[in-house]
Amino acid sequence: MASYVEGGKDYNRDMNYIGDRITQDGRDGWPVQAGRYRLIAARACPWANRTLIVRRLLGLEDAISLGLCGPTHDVRSWTFDLDPGGVDPVLGYERLQQAYFARYPDYPRGITVPAIVDIPTKAVVTNDFPTITVDFETEWTDFHRDGAPDLYPDKLRDEIEEVAHRVFTEVNNGVYRCGFAGSQEAYDSAYDRLFTALDWLEERLSEQRYLVGDTITEADVRLFTTLARFDPVYHGHFKCNRNKLDEMPALWGYARDLFQTPGFGDTIDFVQIKRHYYVVHSDINPTGIVPKGPDLSNWLTPHHREQLGGRPFGDGTPPGPPVPAEVVPAGHTPLPA
Amino acid sequence: MASYVEGGKDYNRDMNYIGDRITQDGRDGWPVQAGRYRLIAARACPWANRTLIVRRLLGLEDAISLGLCGPTHDVRSWTFDLDPGGVDPVLGYERLQQAYFARYPDYPRGITVPAIVDIPTKAVVTNDFPTITVDFETEWTDFHRDGAPDLYPDKLRDEIEEVAHRVFTEVNNGVYRCGFAGSQEAYDSAYDRLFTALDWLEERLSEQRYLVGDTITEADVRLFTTLARFDPVYHGHFKCNRNKLDEMPALWGYARDLFQTPGFGDTIDFVQIKRHYYVVHSDINPTGIVPKGPDLSNWLTPHHREQLGGRPFGDGTPPGPPVPAEVVPAGHTPLPA
Repeated sequence: MASYVEGGKDYNRDMNYIGDRITQDGRDGWPVQAGRYRLIAARACPWANRTLIVRRLLGLEDAISLGLCGPTHDVRSWTFDLDPGGVDPVLGYERLQQAYFARYPDYPRGITVPAIVDIPTKAVVTNDFPTITVDFETEWTDFHRDGAPDLYPDKLRDEIEEVAHRVFTEVNNGVYRCGFAGSQEAYDSAYDRLFTALDWLEERLSEQRYLVGDTITEADVRLFTTLARFDPVYHGHFKCNRNKLDEMPALWGYARDLFQTPGFGDTIDFVQIKRHYYVVHSDINPTGIVPKGPDLSNWLTPHHREQLGGRPFGDGTPPGPPVPAEVVPAGHTPLPA
Repeated sequence: MASYVEGGKDYNRDMNYIGDRITQDGRDGWPVQAGRYRLIAARACPWANRTLIVRRLLGLEDAISLGLCGPTHDVRSWTFDLDPGGVDPVLGYERLQQAYFARYPDYPRGITVPAIVDIPTKAVVTNDFPTITVDFETEWTDFHRDGAPDLYPDKLRDEIEEVAHRVFTEVNNGVYRCGFAGSQEAYDSAYDRLFTALDWLEERLSEQRYLVGDTITEADVRLFTTLARFDPVYHGHFKCNRNKLDEMPALWGYARDLFQTPGFGDTIDFVQIKRHYYVVHSDINPTGIVPKGPDLSNWLTPHHREQLGGRPFGDGTPPGPPVPAEVVPAGHTPLPA
């Protein structure tokens, strides 16, 4: 098993990603082209979860196919154990590692999801998660569904990136900084940073429905996937336990509002999420036992956020239901009655 | 470090204790006698915490002296590291183990608190925790303070023992059964048993202020010390996480009512409690990092349990403040403003 905690050390995320971009002008050698690329994700992973949401919201299912890795893995990382025979039906791979090695035979860094794979060469094009969703929004426009929302509006990009930067360093990554702290001092400081940021978000969201502007944007997608994991995983497993998310009224209302919006909650698989963290991180949970709690039926309770106004999809419309092959298994996530 | 989790196994508490009793008739060779015995406890330990509460409520401080072990220990168990020079000033011991070996040189079982030590021979008389508090209540009556409550009323004893038995097997010990489960199946079953019992208590306490009768009894003391540890420790560390205690209105009101009653909250040291569990149980928390949360100031919020009636001390009175040498350090427990 991989070791995540380094004694005496702060946790530092390796931010060196394969940074090629798939663009309309194909300047990196990867032109936007329907059917050419496969998104490899895992429902367990918050960074990959972003791509699942944006792909759904924009209706890119037909243009970009999807392979899903199972929630648990060993030191060689993500596998296709959910697929028949344990093999991705398009790539023929058992392990996502194979797609990285097809690109760089000596690839030295972590094998991460999300990754976009070029189907003809079966090689990874990019695993640079913040760019993947922005490129879905700005480069894949020819393939957006009718009514797709504008998740990255031109005039809000600076504000989205500014907010998302703080959300990334303090919250998305902040929970990991708590959980993988190598000393009490590192943990204490990480905890204070995290809750300072959550208090800032609580205040910001008490008067506006969404993080930036009055519609759902990329900034909301980035925060949501961390919030969805907060009470089931980060609160206990990562010791982010000043309070549960459901004790912060604005953030909890905001999280439920998004969860109940088509394209968000229907990408969440709480069973896989819990299994991933509690099984893979054997250095902080050596027994591998996965908690039964918390009770997650509260994600469906009324949030009353409509009272703050806002138009979730702006001039667009919500996506339809997930395609049958991509429906989260029954019982893995609370569903409306 | 001791190993608490046995792979594949249910957790079983060793219930073989040194069962001698200190009685008025001295039938086991240990007559009730002021100044002869020393209670060795640790604020961290829920079983020892019971004796601290009962001794306070009954005003036995002058009759039975108190030695306190620190919250953390190695495989050789509890030490007097809080005392100057790391030595209990009355017994001259560094480790509680020495008092067990003074009684039985080959003592083979766990070195546990609470223990009552005979000061002349420096040997353990008993570590049988359920009997210790009952004997404080029924054998040490000559030394009770004026206004001491009757915590074990003759006509309620059967009901107290019946309720306390279920509380013991399902709650007091039930949280350990979750935390030290050696398999997912053992944990899942332990979790269900625990929350079934908490639901039963929630219902019982929604219509009556105390567990048995309309005054505080031994049954309340036994439940309280587990409830006080629930959100700070058991919820995360032992994965008892269907919900926090503060999400169960009757139980949470009940726990705060007792916490705010003299003799209960003033024996609680949340800092020591958290350090104990998170540091000593290295097999479930190998990093030894102690969570900063949860926010515990909520223990002082109004509980409104007076509306259910009841007379906390019956015909008696509350105890005065703790003797100065036994006051919990400032900042370790929320205090009324």
